Amino acid sequence: MPKEASSFINECNGLVHLSVTGVVGHAQMNKTVALIDKAAGLLWLAMLDDCEKIRPSNVLSRKIVKKSMSTFSFTIEAECSETWARAGVVTTPHGAIPTPIFMPVGTQATVKSVSPEELRAAGAAIILANTYHLMLRPGSGLIHEFGGLHNFMHWDGPILTDSGGFQVFSLGHLRKLSEEGAAFKSHLDGSPHLLTPESVMKIEYELGSDIVLPLDICAPYPSTAKEAQVAMERTHRWAERALETKPQYNPQQTLFGIVQGAFEPELRQESARFIGGLPFPGLSIGGLSVGEPKGMMWDLLRVTTPELPREKPRHLLGVGSPEDLVIGVGLGMDMFDCVLPTRVARHGGLFTRDGRISIKGARYRSMHDPVEDGCDCYTCRNYSAAYVHHLARTEEQLYYRLGSIHNIRFMLRLAAELRASIIAHTYPAFRDTFLERYVPASEQTREAQREKWKAARQQKV
Amino acid sequence: MPKEASSFINECNGLVHLSVTGVVGHAQMNKTVALIDKAAGLLWLAMLDDCEKIRPSNVLSRKIVKKSMSTFSFTIEAECSETWARAGVVTTPHGAIPTPIFMPVGTQATVKSVSPEELRAAGAAIILANTYHLMLRPGSGLIHEFGGLHNFMHWDGPILTDSGGFQVFSLGHLRKLSEEGAAFKSHLDGSPHLLTPESVMKIEYELGSDIVLPLDICAPYPSTAKEAQVAMERTHRWAERALETKPQYNPQQTLFGIVQGAFEPELRQESARFIGGLPFPGLSIGGLSVGEPKGMMWDLLRVTTPELPREKPRHLLGVGSPEDLVIGVGLGMDMFDCVLPTRVARHGGLFTRDGRISIKGARYRSMHDPVEDGCDCYTCRNYSAAYVHHLARTEEQLYYRLGSIHNIRFMLRLAAELRASIIAHTYPAFRDTFLERYVPASEQTREAQREKWKAARQQKV
Repeated sequence: MPKEASSFINECNGLVHLSVTGVVGHAQMNKTVALIDKAAGLLWLAMLDDCEKIRPSNVLSRKIVKKSMSTFSFTIEAECSETWARAGVVTTPHGAIPTPIFMPVGTQATVKSVSPEELRAAGAAIILANTYHLMLRPGSGLIHEFGGLHNFMHWDGPILTDSGGFQVFSLGHLRKLSEEGAAFKSHLDGSPHLLTPESVMKIEYELGSDIVLPLDICAPYPSTAKEAQVAMERTHRWAERALETKPQYNPQQTLFGIVQGAFEPELRQESARFIGGLPFPGLSIGGLSVGEPKGMMWDLLRVTTPELPREKPRHLLGVGSPEDLVIGVGLGMDMFDCVLPTRVARHGGLFTRDGRISIKGARYRSMHDPVEDGCDCYTCRNYSAAYVHHLARTEEQLYYRLGSIHNIRFMLRLAAELRASIIAHTYPAFRDTFLERYVPASEQTREAQREKWKAARQQKV
Repeated sequence: MPKEASSFINECNGLVHLSVTGVVGHAQMNKTVALIDKAAGLLWLAMLDDCEKIRPSNVLSRKIVKKSMSTFSFTIEAECSETWARAGVVTTPHGAIPTPIFMPVGTQATVKSVSPEELRAAGAAIILANTYHLMLRPGSGLIHEFGGLHNFMHWDGPILTDSGGFQVFSLGHLRKLSEEGAAFKSHLDGSPHLLTPESVMKIEYELGSDIVLPLDICAPYPSTAKEAQVAMERTHRWAERALETKPQYNPQQTLFGIVQGAFEPELRQESARFIGGLPFPGLSIGGLSVGEPKGMMWDLLRVTTPELPREKPRHLLGVGSPEDLVIGVGLGMDMFDCVLPTRVARHGGLFTRDGRISIKGARYRSMHDPVEDGCDCYTCRNYSAAYVHHLARTEEQLYYRLGSIHNIRFMLRLAAELRASIIAHTYPAFRDTFLERYVPASEQTREAQREKWKAARQQKV
């Protein structure tokens, strides 16, 4: 091994992030070092003792961004005395996340119509990507060749990947469930695939996300108590299998546990105790917001949260709308993700403090004001509502971007305001004031949307 | 009139651009002053002698950006001794344009999928917008209320608007031509409209572009010599009517003349002499690249250019591709516009020095290099070809943006390189080297595209 490379490597302990112009790679130093040969377009995982491929010229051009064994942590900075709301910080290899936080969803390694720089400018601290979609296209192996999702999609902040389970279960007739895992046919080309708790760990390792989720079973709404129990118990066994498999992959990735239990309060409590007791550094609450009434979801959270360990961050999977964020925080949730803000934006629905407006409406045709007065997003700072209306009506692509940026910024500003209110011990008043003013979409509107999206999903997943 | 407003107004000579936070207005000071009342969302055109509506608080918050009667000029900085290529600068109220230049097309007050900031970053110095589309939606009156296109679309650089004639003529059975003008039915709602040389001047005044074009007749390919002559002669009469009408509108807008003559060399020469002899500060060559063979277009330019006055900038309407730019410059053209770079990008066609590639091709699936090695565009600086390929294959909206930015930057870098080569007296060698390496799309490919786009246009114009 060349001397310069050797001394470089000796400086590092634990995991090293190496940055080359435009490319960032990871490696665990005790075993391997990742070398990205930009000229050859290759990612090398070279054993330390057999490191002839390390060229000093490459190594010296790199910068050590971080060193440590596991950078994941969660600290609680403030707790509400009247509710279960808390403000904290989740630390990951790609940066710190102030909580409560909303995570924009980048299903196919892109948050639809928005660039990474725009996400940053909108205040995004972490994004979510979908394992199901990425394993099929372009494939997790290919993403691994590119040094993981961060490099591949040019997003250097934290990423959480789901397990693919939710998408597989919504495939219906295309999948078959067993104790081993979930077999399914690709919605793209019909090719057969098998997701197991073990294979999902490998796929998410290849994706390189900061927070990974284990394969779970999301029971449909409605489910019988028996179906709910069977699904929950298998989810628990799969959680243990995921924990057993995880150590063979990158320790810098943090595995969250998933609490299930469908719509049965006792099962939800049992799952919270079981999953909460396993050595997961964080917890996701799964299987909610899948068609049940909103009130039922909140009731289930009310019995679940007290069973969760205080010191682990809590992620409410697939939730939600602005009002969901405000209510969910008071029920002890720290992290939220949902396609809703970007999806409704694409259909013309934009968030304001007074509720969701339809920018295609005739009243915006000649409005000089921005979409929301006082909003600090790129869209509102630079364009009139009339222009956004014009773009939406003419179905111009720039509309989808401007609408998505506005809604993402709305969610992230709301999360920041929630956090500030918790720290200032004014969360209950903030929540009440927000909910008094904000008119949520009606159950009817939401039902109509769900039907439309379901129909679209049957074709495309 | 309040004293502060009066002294503010007295400082200004000729035309004033007033900038309020996020809003820019124009007014000719000798007659009127434009006041934008942001709070009320109104544009006031107040006579100087009857100026009670001017509130000092508004006026004092404004900044004088420019003052003058007419800021349009064209200076030639270098000319090629072997060809007709020249390098120059066109000056407009919204900035200077180095020529030769390529103008991205923003049909509906947006260059599809690209933001104004991204256009600037890609080197855009002027963009083109389509009068036909904008008069129908959102309407030129509405755009006028917003202080013109610049304010409306958040682009503070120069804008050229066409006359709407080309779109009207391509409507076919939906329009009726007379000496008065062109009557047509909107492709959106069937509503009847009449474009005359006079009404087009008013519409373009309302749009507020820097360079405006007069109504002309674009003869289809093929046309008989008689049809070509009739169309050209009417275009000439309409040019004179436009010149008569123009002075009643904003003198800061510059009216170019349009040379026609279809595919008849003698008519092209006659039109060049006639239009070139009228007091137009610049000239557009219309009616080319409408389906005739490329060779025919170049032959027609070869006989046209010598008849054009040297001192006026020359705009080749609706052209073209990278190779068109390189060849057209040598035939004396200064300005080019075309939807091609953005349209082919949306279909997966990206420009490189070696020709157009299809990014959807399997060979890009795992390519670590950018789309074009050494390209300085946002896309190539930040993403691998594999990622762009992935976005294109999954039809993600970010693809359309990344592809469009690449092609726009390619065209603008090419224009800058052409300009530098003219100044360095190496244009002929630059042209030959470029054309030797660049493989243009085959006539067959272009024909297939034309058919596809024509079919799409029949539905959408």
